[in-house]
Amino acid sequence: MLDTPSPQRTPLSELGEFALIDRLTAAVELKAPSSKVGVGDDAAVLDFGDSEVLISKDLLVEGVHFDLSYMPLKHLGYKAVMVNLSDLYAMNGTPSQILVGMAVSNRFPVEALEEIYAGMLLACSRYGVDLVGGDTTSSTSGLMLSVTAVGHVARGKAVKRNGAQAGDLLVVTGDLGAAYMGLQILEREKATYQANPNLQPELQGHEYVLERQLKPEARRDIGPLLAELGVTPTSMIDVSDGLSSEILHLGTQSGLGCTIYEDKIPMDPQMMRVAEEFGINPVTAVLNGGEDYELLFTMPIAEFDKIKANPSLTPIGHMTADKIFQMVTNAGQSIPLEAQGWKAFQTEDPATEK
Amino acid sequence: MLDTPSPQRTPLSELGEFALIDRLTAAVELKAPSSKVGVGDDAAVLDFGDSEVLISKDLLVEGVHFDLSYMPLKHLGYKAVMVNLSDLYAMNGTPSQILVGMAVSNRFPVEALEEIYAGMLLACSRYGVDLVGGDTTSSTSGLMLSVTAVGHVARGKAVKRNGAQAGDLLVVTGDLGAAYMGLQILEREKATYQANPNLQPELQGHEYVLERQLKPEARRDIGPLLAELGVTPTSMIDVSDGLSSEILHLGTQSGLGCTIYEDKIPMDPQMMRVAEEFGINPVTAVLNGGEDYELLFTMPIAEFDKIKANPSLTPIGHMTADKIFQMVTNAGQSIPLEAQGWKAFQTEDPATEK
Repeated sequence: MLDTPSPQRTPLSELGEFALIDRLTAAVELKAPSSKVGVGDDAAVLDFGDSEVLISKDLLVEGVHFDLSYMPLKHLGYKAVMVNLSDLYAMNGTPSQILVGMAVSNRFPVEALEEIYAGMLLACSRYGVDLVGGDTTSSTSGLMLSVTAVGHVARGKAVKRNGAQAGDLLVVTGDLGAAYMGLQILEREKATYQANPNLQPELQGHEYVLERQLKPEARRDIGPLLAELGVTPTSMIDVSDGLSSEILHLGTQSGLGCTIYEDKIPMDPQMMRVAEEFGINPVTAVLNGGEDYELLFTMPIAEFDKIKANPSLTPIGHMTADKIFQMVTNAGQSIPLEAQGWKAFQTEDPATEK
Repeated sequence: MLDTPSPQRTPLSELGEFALIDRLTAAVELKAPSSKVGVGDDAAVLDFGDSEVLISKDLLVEGVHFDLSYMPLKHLGYKAVMVNLSDLYAMNGTPSQILVGMAVSNRFPVEALEEIYAGMLLACSRYGVDLVGGDTTSSTSGLMLSVTAVGHVARGKAVKRNGAQAGDLLVVTGDLGAAYMGLQILEREKATYQANPNLQPELQGHEYVLERQLKPEARRDIGPLLAELGVTPTSMIDVSDGLSSEILHLGTQSGLGCTIYEDKIPMDPQMMRVAEEFGINPVTAVLNGGEDYELLFTMPIAEFDKIKANPSLTPIGHMTADKIFQMVTNAGQSIPLEAQGWKAFQTEDPATEK
């Protein structure tokens, strides 16, 4: 699971900026028809006919969003791309290019950056996306990745956060909470290793939750699936910060409230087993955990029959005119939904908050 | 010149991520006709008719690209935008949107980030650009800005680095080397202040070189000027890393060499005086200093009459088929031109290298 360090260590200072960029981008190919100019000029030139251009941007900071003691560099590169592609899929868009910024301290050898790039290029290749530019520079400490994703959508077909209507069904893809439980496993094994470096990490039986944390996949399949089913989402968002936050974003921006039902929330059995092992309420992990990169969308309730019984799509509640956000528990109680977000500016590790 | 610290200090932890973003983006307005969706959704939606989309991305890292002991935060925000717009002008493009990523440690109060945003929004307003999205997160130490600029250019009119022809004139806008000398002044005054905090900084008489370092302007005027003069550049780049590097980029990517003449290089008298004061050869500052954000371009020598006597445009040499890069000095000697770049991965401050 964890990478063995590369035996070769070329100090970054040996190469210089331009040689490093040449080396990092040697494997970059342009494939999308809209990529006219890529890496190596002042800006990328993109050619979109009559569709609209979509751009998203996310930062990943060492010690905040990832911990290199258990996040292999190649996985980190892959995940940095997924996080951004997920934003474009959440607009009903199709990603076509990324630009990558990396700020890295001297402690990273060239090979480490190549591993990150390898992960990013693997993601690009699997998702049909070109890496068309960016910037690489030094930092005084740590590693920071900044990815900008560019994509397109047919004119007028972008699905925003503010289009939900009262009475709309709220639907989520896949299952939730597993990425958070994967993080708990990794944190525990890190602590065990620090206490006794001779102990082997116990990762068996946790493959699903670990993969959800270390190698998430963006839901590229949902746009085509909804089109095939004849469903037009009225609003959509990706689940990066935990279900509560995302529901509040959709509801607030649409001027509505929302009621969801605990017993409808899709959870994987392995995730629930791990939650029990850690004494964590699995629903808390779903509501506040984050990093699931599933899609959450609203749709007219009259179209329910179109999605019924589809294993990828689970209705979990409906939008309400009263601007109240609540979850009805299995015991029949109503509890308020609150945005946790990442609390990015508190000193503790934001990803481990309850 | 230097900002007085704001008396109000709201800890970032008091606000939380979403409230901070709301506060930072409260003053953001959408103005460009192509801005359909801006901050507050998963991605920006941009509408470009039949022109091409341009995107650039640059990172600015504390301790590497700027020093907050003498760089006021508002100026930093302004400069971060200029650096990116300059890239688009260097493609013959017109910027229309930016996306901003900020990673900041807890030591910055909210007001500090608002100052940075104020500088960015001032730049946006002056240059007719919309801030349409981005990401704000915490860092374990220091401040990092990542700006993505998006713009457009008429189909087929982007000026790349690889179009220069043997015999083309090499032309530079404005004057060179002043931003580097401004940095020398600031570094000296910082050292003086650290030795004796009661001494006032001596900045009088250095206004031009300081402004070139602290508040550079991107050359938005050059595209329209060249169009008016009927000149079509064959290749173009902005001067961010020092003249030598940029000449090597244009020449190498066009498969050519270049000869420039020391006595043709445009330098401001104040910059030359400061260079003398520091015992630095002013031409060295021009060749290796960087951060001038002027434009460097090639054009057919047959069109020389169109630019002759224009004070904004100075021919400094010509492109050669022999792939040799050289400068003919005032003494008539030929010396090779070498790329210095920022040597971004060496431990010393890259901007202060010779």
